[in-house]
Amino acid sequence: MMTIYDWHTGPYPARVRIALGELGLQSQVRFVSISLRKGEHKTPAFLAKNYSGTLPVLELDDGTLIAECTAITQYLDALNGDPRLTGATPLEQGVIHMMNKRAEIELLDAVSVYFHHATRGLGPDVEVYQNEEWGLRQRDKAVRGIRYFDGVLQHQPFIAGDAFSMADITVIGGLIFAELVELPVPVECEALRAWYARMQERPSVQNRITMSEPAEVSV
Amino acid sequence: MMTIYDWHTGPYPARVRIALGELGLQSQVRFVSISLRKGEHKTPAFLAKNYSGTLPVLELDDGTLIAECTAITQYLDALNGDPRLTGATPLEQGVIHMMNKRAEIELLDAVSVYFHHATRGLGPDVEVYQNEEWGLRQRDKAVRGIRYFDGVLQHQPFIAGDAFSMADITVIGGLIFAELVELPVPVECEALRAWYARMQERPSVQNRITMSEPAEVSV
Repeated sequence: MMTIYDWHTGPYPARVRIALGELGLQSQVRFVSISLRKGEHKTPAFLAKNYSGTLPVLELDDGTLIAECTAITQYLDALNGDPRLTGATPLEQGVIHMMNKRAEIELLDAVSVYFHHATRGLGPDVEVYQNEEWGLRQRDKAVRGIRYFDGVLQHQPFIAGDAFSMADITVIGGLIFAELVELPVPVECEALRAWYARMQERPSVQNRITMSEPAEVSV
Repeated sequence: MMTIYDWHTGPYPARVRIALGELGLQSQVRFVSISLRKGEHKTPAFLAKNYSGTLPVLELDDGTLIAECTAITQYLDALNGDPRLTGATPLEQGVIHMMNKRAEIELLDAVSVYFHHATRGLGPDVEVYQNEEWGLRQRDKAVRGIRYFDGVLQHQPFIAGDAFSMADITVIGGLIFAELVELPVPVECEALRAWYARMQERPSVQNRITMSEPAEVSV
């Protein structure tokens, strides 16, 4: 049984939860809630698990810790020798990792910085330093990123080409976070809106929050 | 023949150049210089190759473009079916990707933000927006990152464990960039200093700049 430390509604945790659903691995995981609002991800105990103080973190039976969504997804996708999210060929792997990183830089991470620096974020007890000007720049970057991914989807059905991948999951995470901070996808971004509607039909996306309910415990 | 768009002394380009050297692929690549100082990586022509406007970018014979060092390294390492930089087992892949990402967040990217925002950077024509306070925060983050990786290397010979990997290359890139901005590794970080001395003995690290000389052209 693997353990995932996360928070059920977090946009980054959503990435790994969707990956688990896509891979049918949810029954092999127990979830441990780390309260973002209480700043439990910044305590010394949690920083010992993940130096960067971010969620989610995967812990294996032998105590091995794997942080970072991309790394966790890479691990989970490799488990049964038949990768479905990170690419089977060198070309697929390269393009998926490129688009996954681009989705972080240009959308998800940018929205996150906006949230933590130019809104109330997780509240004054957690947001001990804010740089509002930087946050607002990142908000504008995210809006440009939304338009960029709309352009990508005008030419292909998924973010990294012809098949669903980790890169789609990261853009989904970006749009989940964008909704939370009330950054809507512009009406004219029809390709992105249509793709997002299709993504929300996937069971992995629909079930991501309730996935943790049976075993959820608070620490 | 693959094409790599980069700049021969750039810290991010160094990551892919070191990967090429480690994999023995340098003869299969031609290099095209993109002048960072002239801002050639921010022109519309280059942005069409890489939306994020960063170096390096790999172009395949069929015109496929792969940006982002991690993605390029993943592609190159998968080419011959015997990965040596990104991990062979799921566990290796997960840990290497985690430490690689951590090396970006906590060191290399932090130094880069410091350079572009709180020093002269690439000069006023290229650095059209600077947020000095953010840059200085990232400098301090990088210094903490240097101490973190020193701690890692007190317990294991390489950044991701017992073998050289992509994660070592990213920390090397971080220390190359730290040298450029005159952020020295503290004397007391003996494990990191000893590791870096060992890394500099690797031919891939020694030859990274001269690698492009035979075929270098300017665009």
